[in-house]
Amino acid sequence: MIRVALIGSTGYTALEVARLLLAHPQAELTVATSRSDEGKPLAEIHPFLTGRSNVALQPFDAAKIAEQADVAMCCLPHGASAQSVRELAAAGVRVIDFSADFRLSSVPLYEHWYGVTHPWPERIGNVVYGMPEFFADQIATADVVANPGCYPTSAIMPLAPLVREGLIETNDIIVDSKSGVSGAGRSAKLGTLYCETNESIAAYAIAAHRHGPEMEDLVHRIAGTPVEILFTPHLTPMDRGILSTIYVRPTLSVGDTTESVQSKLSDALRRAYEGQPFVHVVDHLPATKHVKMTNHVQMTVRVSGEPTTPGRAVIVCAIDNLSKGASSAAIQNMNVMFGLDETSGL
Amino acid sequence: MIRVALIGSTGYTALEVARLLLAHPQAELTVATSRSDEGKPLAEIHPFLTGRSNVALQPFDAAKIAEQADVAMCCLPHGASAQSVRELAAAGVRVIDFSADFRLSSVPLYEHWYGVTHPWPERIGNVVYGMPEFFADQIATADVVANPGCYPTSAIMPLAPLVREGLIETNDIIVDSKSGVSGAGRSAKLGTLYCETNESIAAYAIAAHRHGPEMEDLVHRIAGTPVEILFTPHLTPMDRGILSTIYVRPTLSVGDTTESVQSKLSDALRRAYEGQPFVHVVDHLPATKHVKMTNHVQMTVRVSGEPTTPGRAVIVCAIDNLSKGASSAAIQNMNVMFGLDETSGL
Amino acid sequence: MIRVALIGSTGYTALEVARLLLAHPQAELTVATSRSDEGKPLAEIHPFLTGRSNVALQPFDAAKIAEQADVAMCCLPHGASAQSVRELAAAGVRVIDFSADFRLSSVPLYEHWYGVTHPWPERIGNVVYGMPEFFADQIATADVVANPGCYPTSAIMPLAPLVREGLIETNDIIVDSKSGVSGAGRSAKLGTLYCETNESIAAYAIAAHRHGPEMEDLVHRIAGTPVEILFTPHLTPMDRGILSTIYVRPTLSVGDTTESVQSKLSDALRRAYEGQPFVHVVDHLPATKHVKMTNHVQMTVRVSGEPTTPGRAVIVCAIDNLSKGASSAAIQNMNVMFGLDETSGL
Amino acid sequence: MIRVALIGSTGYTALEVARLLLAHPQAELTVATSRSDEGKPLAEIHPFLTGRSNVALQPFDAAKIAEQADVAMCCLPHGASAQSVRELAAAGVRVIDFSADFRLSSVPLYEHWYGVTHPWPERIGNVVYGMPEFFADQIATADVVANPGCYPTSAIMPLAPLVREGLIETNDIIVDSKSGVSGAGRSAKLGTLYCETNESIAAYAIAAHRHGPEMEDLVHRIAGTPVEILFTPHLTPMDRGILSTIYVRPTLSVGDTTESVQSKLSDALRRAYEGQPFVHVVDHLPATKHVKMTNHVQMTVRVSGEPTTPGRAVIVCAIDNLSKGASSAAIQNMNVMFGLDETSGL
Repeated sequence: MIRVALIGSTGYTALEVARLLLAHPQAELTVATSRSDEGKPLAEIHPFLTGRSNVALQPFDAAKIAEQADVAMCCLPHGASAQSVRELAAAGVRVIDFSADFRLSSVPLYEHWYGVTHPWPERIGNVVYGMPEFFADQIATADVVANPGCYPTSAIMPLAPLVREGLIETNDIIVDSKSGVSGAGRSAKLGTLYCETNESIAAYAIAAHRHGPEMEDLVHRIAGTPVEILFTPHLTPMDRGILSTIYVRPTLSVGDTTESVQSKLSDALRRAYEGQPFVHVVDHLPATKHVKMTNHVQMTVRVSGEPTTPGRAVIVCAIDNLSKGASSAAIQNMNVMFGLDETSGL
Repeated sequence: MIRVALIGSTGYTALEVARLLLAHPQAELTVATSRSDEGKPLAEIHPFLTGRSNVALQPFDAAKIAEQADVAMCCLPHGASAQSVRELAAAGVRVIDFSADFRLSSVPLYEHWYGVTHPWPERIGNVVYGMPEFFADQIATADVVANPGCYPTSAIMPLAPLVREGLIETNDIIVDSKSGVSGAGRSAKLGTLYCETNESIAAYAIAAHRHGPEMEDLVHRIAGTPVEILFTPHLTPMDRGILSTIYVRPTLSVGDTTESVQSKLSDALRRAYEGQPFVHVVDHLPATKHVKMTNHVQMTVRVSGEPTTPGRAVIVCAIDNLSKGASSAAIQNMNVMFGLDETSGL
Repeated sequence: MIRVALIGSTGYTALEVARLLLAHPQAELTVATSRSDEGKPLAEIHPFLTGRSNVALQPFDAAKIAEQADVAMCCLPHGASAQSVRELAAAGVRVIDFSADFRLSSVPLYEHWYGVTHPWPERIGNVVYGMPEFFADQIATADVVANPGCYPTSAIMPLAPLVREGLIETNDIIVDSKSGVSGAGRSAKLGTLYCETNESIAAYAIAAHRHGPEMEDLVHRIAGTPVEILFTPHLTPMDRGILSTIYVRPTLSVGDTTESVQSKLSDALRRAYEGQPFVHVVDHLPATKHVKMTNHVQMTVRVSGEPTTPGRAVIVCAIDNLSKGASSAAIQNMNVMFGLDETSGL
Repeated sequence: MIRVALIGSTGYTALEVARLLLAHPQAELTVATSRSDEGKPLAEIHPFLTGRSNVALQPFDAAKIAEQADVAMCCLPHGASAQSVRELAAAGVRVIDFSADFRLSSVPLYEHWYGVTHPWPERIGNVVYGMPEFFADQIATADVVANPGCYPTSAIMPLAPLVREGLIETNDIIVDSKSGVSGAGRSAKLGTLYCETNESIAAYAIAAHRHGPEMEDLVHRIAGTPVEILFTPHLTPMDRGILSTIYVRPTLSVGDTTESVQSKLSDALRRAYEGQPFVHVVDHLPATKHVKMTNHVQMTVRVSGEPTTPGRAVIVCAIDNLSKGASSAAIQNMNVMFGLDETSGL
């Protein structure tokens, strides 16, 4: 059994990891840390686990964790996370980091968007992005994996193959995303109170959300071409799920029709994900409920315009933000890191 | 125009008062106080009011408010509220108090349940309960009105007439109430985060909620008979609304059937509320949506048992917790206090 | 009192009209028709109205309605509506038509998108669009008013002034709209069951929704310039509300910055709606909750890009689909038609 | 691998069975029947299954199913179900029946509450109730298992042990239950449209719901004593989950306190479920979210009254109506029937 440590245990992604491990045939939760509440059962923080987990909270101690666990899932805030990751890696624990600390390619980009000095800058550019659909080989041997952001997962997966094949313009991409409220975390804030967000939808951080540069950086890294993305996230009245509606301009050839363009884009996506167990290019319009509480991704392509004058393509991609957007993706990464079947426990 | 001051302006009941006053033909909001944010527009705290209100926040100063307003709606926490009410009353401002500070009949009962020393104990027993359906005459001339609690409104209104007429046993009453989340207020707490309460229902404070004694006290005061109530509130995944399902044991006469009992109870309620514009004894099973964002009350009676051996009666009562359970009831009280049509602006 | 007839009474927009009329000081509901349920109280169809309305359902009879009402609000499906409108107009009843039958400028456009032969084609191009912010004079004297579509309202209001002033490119406009479920109507369909739409968001009718051409047609009519709009609606898990996130390309001048562009667009909108009681150009990012159950519109502008290289502008516009998107807009139109204060009862 | 047939595939319980089987290590879905849509992929009915299931719909044919499957999960409406169960059993397929057709102990009771003539009356009283916590031995060898009702599960599990031990009065039990909307099924009905049930709670079928007699019958069967239950279900705005708040009168001994009574009842429940993997007697107040999408049950006891004069006990029990209330209970039954670990795949 792979022994898993949860670093930072009070949030929704941590609960989701614990929940998924309950059903995993080859891995188990052995450690859960918290800055406070030492000795308290994890199930007291998350009553969902009552009678199902007897792990108790302990303070963070990398050396001790190295004895108790084979891999750590680090669910700490950015900035704080990098320091713990560094200590865990030094102690020989393989780490899957849920924060943004090791996702971007350059220190200045990170420091610009996150407003902190990076505590371990020499590793930037040297940590694999935890998307096994593109980086499985590197993940398999990695000491540290940067678990992808939720919004970026929903945009990178449809965009990267299309950019790589030159099928869409790179300078005119709009990503309009709608996320469930769990993406905002489990700390008590006015803005995520039930009565503030229920029965309401709103945009936030227009053209100013940190996940925009993450999308651009990763599409660039995967496809080999820089891209410009205008990203607008929306807070949607539901617990979980992200739907990204992506507006792109296809690169047209003579004689292209809406139908031929739709086929070209869909086929490129199908090819890119052939054999991938979790990614589905579908004919129907995916709803977030179609992937709820799963590691699966559903995406589809539509093309606007008159039949013989194709306009923009609209790509819709649905994931569960806490699953493929966070915790089940981490389990998938763990499976790859330890040579298990990629779908084990998922 | 009646000039209204809002004391404590950041919560949901305060917003609801402001919203209702926008539509009131004979009253207007002239003052809004807050412990902080002096000078800030009220609409900045409540973006719902943008472009519709130009009241700015000011610190609490009873003398100044006396010049600016005819009546104050006090939306402060219990304990804190009584002190402000006292100062406002001394300055000659009539007050409708949303807190529980003046609702109960005795100081010990208050101090037992609220755990604070009452700041103005001599007024206890001497402030009218703001339910015009029973106390309109006293409200009309009151300097201070204790605006009813939300859960109590949904239980007192169906129970008081039945107890008064001796139609139900007084020692075996169960009130199982389901409330929307706005009842928990607008402060940032883990328990009322969207992802904690959405898609979930839970009981809380079983047989230990402060609104239980308020129900008993008021039914006693109105009906003239002491009663025992077992009260269980539930947090329900919706913004607004209270549904109380009330289990009572009818006092039976020889020959009573389920049908005759149902008629007796329904008729008693219909008589009690004849001519009342906001209370409706209905045939259908009321849903909270049937009274949403209104000052209306819908209630109905069902009787269990075989036709000739009637069992318990089940009474269902629906109100909107922020409306008849708080802010629209306050407007109704204001209307009565100032000799306006009771339904004005409602 | 203006006497109002409701034609087609079982849906959500009809209930909303009835609800609004309860609070209207100068208008009252006198007639409600339905194809079935003759004689049944309207309150039996809508238990919200219990004890508040004693209108009973009657069959449609234009001559009779002409004696009972001054204005008819026609809440029938497209195609069916035009025929009733024609009969009512012939009988001398002024009509506000909620269907799409008289919104578009040309018969072929209508017949292409709605797939039916228009029953009164000679009136096409000759019925005013019920948006008093642009057409108040014509509405004041109209016999028939085409009440605007919900999505179109949320897009036309921010776009028309910007196109009219030449501030944005006309051939590259994307409208990504999110609507509450009430927009889909009150007939029993699998797709709008609670468990299908709750906790889920999905796009539908991408680049194929009938409200796309309505937006183009009206912006053209108001601004005098043809535009191309790519419109994507989304079904959002909430009862009410539309949020439209609109991506446009500003027409730039030398020296323009993100800030100058944002000012130019915002100022143009503020100018366009100066003195309009229901339209607010705001600084905050509007949520649908900020306009819930009101006739108000909140919109704001953001500009993407580096400070000196402005990119696209993103405009966010929030309305309530059943209010300004349907029933309260109809009341506003009625107020204008009968010379009442435009805000009366709103 | 156990081969499973799904009889009646379009509803929520059927989807839930299919979902659970995807994660089951020793069972797989091999057949799905439907009265219509022959040949259509099951994933077309349930887009959640896209790319994850390649079962296609086939018409019901007991002989053919006997070749394709070891066990059938029958998700048909009552009345219709019994006939299919009979044919499947005759063909040698073991059956887990989700309908109420074989749950009750007597034919007259069934025919009174379900209003149909029972198609296989000789089996009534001769089919095990699928609650392995009480009937595991019989389930292990059963040809037909009556899968429990959702509400009954939430009431029988806390009540049966207390009645069996004589700890509560049997003639004064009130079960006030709150269920998510999925309990109402997946057919298109006005009452379960999103906009009818969202943001609203309502009681229905007060003292007249078919699950009341099922509770009484099973508690009687398990505890050996007849009981009277007053049952009120409520439709709650959430997809899934049942919370039952149960009011009982403890049988008191001299010297009993609220604390001693609470201990007695809690201890009795703990003893009853010792070693049961899915039933948890907890200290916190369970919310339905604590058991969401699991086969787990959480229950707790509170006692009202003054410390030395204990009043009623209030028991709160939370389950997921589609899981332990239907589909995961069926998987648990299947595990027991086929000698697998009871928790396999759960």
